Amino acid sequence: MEKVEESASNVEEEVGEVLEQARELQESGASLLWRLSYEEQSLRQRANSLESSIRRLRSLITSLLPQKLLDPTLADKLEEDLERARCFVTDGDAAAFLPAKYQGKFLKTFLGPINVRASGKDVQLKVKEEYNSYRDRTAYLFLLFPLTLLILRSWIWEGCLPAFPVQLYQAWFLFLYTGLALRENILRSNGSDIRPWWIYHHYCAMAMALVSITWEVKGQPNCTQKQRGVELFLQWAMMQGVAMLLQNRYQHQRLYTRIALGKAKRMDVVWGETAGVDGQLWVLCPILFLMQGFEAYVGVLLLKTAFFGVVPEWQIIFCGILLVVMAVGNFINTVQTLIAKSRFKAKMKKTKGKPEL
Amino acid sequence: MEKVEESASNVEEEVGEVLEQARELQESGASLLWRLSYEEQSLRQRANSLESSIRRLRSLITSLLPQKLLDPTLADKLEEDLERARCFVTDGDAAAFLPAKYQGKFLKTFLGPINVRASGKDVQLKVKEEYNSYRDRTAYLFLLFPLTLLILRSWIWEGCLPAFPVQLYQAWFLFLYTGLALRENILRSNGSDIRPWWIYHHYCAMAMALVSITWEVKGQPNCTQKQRGVELFLQWAMMQGVAMLLQNRYQHQRLYTRIALGKAKRMDVVWGETAGVDGQLWVLCPILFLMQGFEAYVGVLLLKTAFFGVVPEWQIIFCGILLVVMAVGNFINTVQTLIAKSRFKAKMKKTKGKPEL
Repeated sequence: MEKVEESASNVEEEVGEVLEQARELQESGASLLWRLSYEEQSLRQRANSLESSIRRLRSLITSLLPQKLLDPTLADKLEEDLERARCFVTDGDAAAFLPAKYQGKFLKTFLGPINVRASGKDVQLKVKEEYNSYRDRTAYLFLLFPLTLLILRSWIWEGCLPAFPVQLYQAWFLFLYTGLALRENILRSNGSDIRPWWIYHHYCAMAMALVSITWEVKGQPNCTQKQRGVELFLQWAMMQGVAMLLQNRYQHQRLYTRIALGKAKRMDVVWGETAGVDGQLWVLCPILFLMQGFEAYVGVLLLKTAFFGVVPEWQIIFCGILLVVMAVGNFINTVQTLIAKSRFKAKMKKTKGKPEL
Repeated sequence: MEKVEESASNVEEEVGEVLEQARELQESGASLLWRLSYEEQSLRQRANSLESSIRRLRSLITSLLPQKLLDPTLADKLEEDLERARCFVTDGDAAAFLPAKYQGKFLKTFLGPINVRASGKDVQLKVKEEYNSYRDRTAYLFLLFPLTLLILRSWIWEGCLPAFPVQLYQAWFLFLYTGLALRENILRSNGSDIRPWWIYHHYCAMAMALVSITWEVKGQPNCTQKQRGVELFLQWAMMQGVAMLLQNRYQHQRLYTRIALGKAKRMDVVWGETAGVDGQLWVLCPILFLMQGFEAYVGVLLLKTAFFGVVPEWQIIFCGILLVVMAVGNFINTVQTLIAKSRFKAKMKKTKGKPEL
């Protein structure tokens, strides 16, 4: 009882202390915010002036070379140094405090003007790793979902897909590509050098998923003929799933090797079909080109179905055109990546033996 | 020419300087990151210990009161002090450096593990203001889009809606509610005290939009009968648009007045149908209850159409049930908010005359 009375007399004092401590915490927070914004501004100014110096020196080197005022070997070395300096500015620890680059209309529309840039390399790495494991999980679903539908179609549904599971699949497809587009935009703001095409590709896939949901899944009679479009779509999705699985396996190995070798930044994403370097590429590349060919073929078949078949729906025409566009875009980007890689290799061979940073 | 030669001799030196400066920038960044994480940890420890003190003192006061060991007026004052201390900890400037609260599964699924918490009150306010203007823009569309469809239906389309514009509208509806759900989850992580129901409400609306897209818009003959469901849906959406506009007008006024009076935190969102205080509420409330009644009525009508009408589609049953659930949830939450507000008012009356912080 005595203890309770003692608490009663102390409680007023203790509350006063707590309030005082809370005020002090508030002051520490405000002071830290103030100092942080001050230091951020100083870093920003230094980064800006460095970036303009790098730009100026680069164009100077380019202008001096043809006049033979600069030894080509020296110019190569200087350009390498400037690239290293640029990496420090844009990918170093100071980069976390620089203002976020423009994050793109897509993120702004869905999320509003929040900053999705992670501060600190460890958080960025966590974002990247979670993205990889998300991609792994979805790749299996990407294969299994349409496969199950096609198997059930011939075993149980007697060649005639019911509407609900197909629409469920298409809704999942929409959800998946919305998530991928959001995540890859976020990775891009975090310094990943993913090619813009792969993000546009996801926008196309989102549009296709949305349109395919409105696509009426017709029943008997003449089910096989009427559902030809859906069947082609599912087959394409299955092939996409296989390609994704191969790519993921390949990229996991490559990315970690490249990080270990210091060749890749940790935020590199090689999503889509622009994977890798070296040996395994010769296994992956034919599969990718085959896939792209099949994608275009499915697109053309859809267009044929729409114009000469029994179901002249606008959705089928739209999806057909989108598939062809995606196939062509994928092809161009894969070839561009291969060219860039072989150039990089040639350069590496030229500077071989030189010790790396 | 002399100038060019001079540049050529200087370029090596300048590149060296730039690289050196970039290294220094990297070091400054690393040091700032390190100091920041150190100070964050210290703030975190102080905040944690303060939070547990506040909890302990609160339960102490509650236990002392019935034993009459504490004067009730003093207890009221102490509780107010503790609440003020809690506000400093959770909503003050230090809060920006504390670890983000769990952001919820929805954000994690769509965005991955990024931190959506804005550091600094000014950024938070910007997020909030952008959200308000987004809400304003969409409220007009929310009213005009279905209105246009219904007008065109009777003027041009002779009572029979074509599928494409309706599906376009439903796709927009899905996009809108996905954006709202993402943005409100982000506001919640930023300290807004929005009631969880309004976010669940958006999930329901997303599900309804997705399902309604798969809902086949049938044509002639018997168009009016077959499209009864779509018509009801559009009418409900129009009423929702009117209610939104009224709420937005009301809340803009209220929120800024309340911020000025220090009654509301700047991140307060009073979205949905739990608006305001005081006089204008007696205009808004009947409209809200009317809307909720109409929502339930549309839901029941949809169910009736599904069970006794000409189109027994599962989508109509699903949407009907969802509308009833949303109406009931909205009603319960509006009533709860009104009760909370009247309690708050009663408390304010009790402590009237006391100078506020």
